[in-house]
Amino acid sequence: MPRFKVTLQYDGTPFVGFQVQPNGPTVQAALEKALKLMSKGHDIPVVGSGRTDSGVHALGQVIHFDYPAEIEEAAILRALNSILDDSIRIIEVERVEADFHARFHTNGKKYIYKVDTSPFPSPFTRQYMYHHPYKTDVDRMQAALKDIIGIHDFKSFCSTKTDKINFVREVYRAEVTADPEEETLTFVFAGSGFLYNMVRILVGTSLQIGDGLRPVDEMKRLIAAKDRNEAGPTAAAHGLYLAEVYYLDPVARKKVTKDYFDYKAGLGDNQT
Amino acid sequence: MPRFKVTLQYDGTPFVGFQVQPNGPTVQAALEKALKLMSKGHDIPVVGSGRTDSGVHALGQVIHFDYPAEIEEAAILRALNSILDDSIRIIEVERVEADFHARFHTNGKKYIYKVDTSPFPSPFTRQYMYHHPYKTDVDRMQAALKDIIGIHDFKSFCSTKTDKINFVREVYRAEVTADPEEETLTFVFAGSGFLYNMVRILVGTSLQIGDGLRPVDEMKRLIAAKDRNEAGPTAAAHGLYLAEVYYLDPVARKKVTKDYFDYKAGLGDNQT
Repeated sequence: MPRFKVTLQYDGTPFVGFQVQPNGPTVQAALEKALKLMSKGHDIPVVGSGRTDSGVHALGQVIHFDYPAEIEEAAILRALNSILDDSIRIIEVERVEADFHARFHTNGKKYIYKVDTSPFPSPFTRQYMYHHPYKTDVDRMQAALKDIIGIHDFKSFCSTKTDKINFVREVYRAEVTADPEEETLTFVFAGSGFLYNMVRILVGTSLQIGDGLRPVDEMKRLIAAKDRNEAGPTAAAHGLYLAEVYYLDPVARKKVTKDYFDYKAGLGDNQT
Repeated sequence: MPRFKVTLQYDGTPFVGFQVQPNGPTVQAALEKALKLMSKGHDIPVVGSGRTDSGVHALGQVIHFDYPAEIEEAAILRALNSILDDSIRIIEVERVEADFHARFHTNGKKYIYKVDTSPFPSPFTRQYMYHHPYKTDVDRMQAALKDIIGIHDFKSFCSTKTDKINFVREVYRAEVTADPEEETLTFVFAGSGFLYNMVRILVGTSLQIGDGLRPVDEMKRLIAAKDRNEAGPTAAAHGLYLAEVYYLDPVARKKVTKDYFDYKAGLGDNQT
């Protein structure tokens, strides 16, 4: 059976998250239902690069599945987009080797977090940006975020609802930019991997630093503390976007270098 | 009782339109309910600059009402934004003379219409842009739109569901721009006034001209035809935004000149 790697976007608002759950609609369930319809009754399991929480959006989530017949990439793109609700959009379909794995072969991820800083939330982005109507100092936040770049133990930035025991991750990019005219902030994080709620806790903590509630060198202290209680709040889900998933070099099938990652991260900017 | 002119934005998605109707939630009803709560039980009628249809958005709708007590402009802004659902946002409150009228004193309006031209609709703009996935020729549309600028009989561009007998209006601006990277089109129309569905029919007709289904000089023929059946389809409501409402010079209280309007229209660009 041919295996396909599929890149998709979704508005997280109507979903209780990516992964199938009994308590509400999920992206995975919508995809599996569409594949069943498309294949005239086959149960086709979908494997995602990772979960996204309830309300979290995706600009570039990646999945793989095996299709029970020969089929063109373009035909999958068209068929899935026709069947799926408009809250999900397939943007790329690529036939891959039979041993490609959307989760096990990831080599990093990029997340974006959007904040609406206007005095009252915009009706048009209320489901797509977190509302934080304060005079936040962007330079302070940017300075603080420099301290998380590199290989660190991010236990302070991980939800206690996790079964992980290794909290060491490498962060390649961590930055925030302001658009004063639009009254928005955009955070970008890229790294080897992210712990549960890590991006949202980094944003919640950064905003407190920007607001002057925490010192500008706070990130260093929190990395050393290794205690979730020391960090700031978990910023709301609806500001978060899984922007891109990076994969191991498909030919060499080995851990790629940081140079390659920087190159990919640069490419990612143009896509989001 | 002090009279207030209030400028507001709304996401039209959850509403059956601006004006109170028995068959669903309206912006006017939400505003009157909020004012009743805020004033501890007073019925305060809200007068809008005009209706917007079900699903149509506003970046700068204007209303007026009389408040049964002395109150600061800023207090109204804060109170209404606290009470109202996030689908409506008050952006400006101005105390005006007791004879100011949000509908009768309008001197023109600006509308924006947004189109998503990507192959499959974006999950993030599916309620905020009309999806038209065709290779539309923007230069053809721009050339065609030049012909509607000026004073014309726009009967061909008016829904037959109207009780109007005078179809003559002056259009000051009619233009379309493309953002190839974002795969979007943005139409801007400003004029002395617009007939029922006029902007949506102008957009529906323009897109057919852009698609090559109608000749580039079609607008001239349609203005002469004075027949709704000759024009193109009414483009979907959810791409349309009431962007700005212009008012008579508040001091002179007379019909202002086109120069003043151009000046105001220029200001409007910065706000949207």
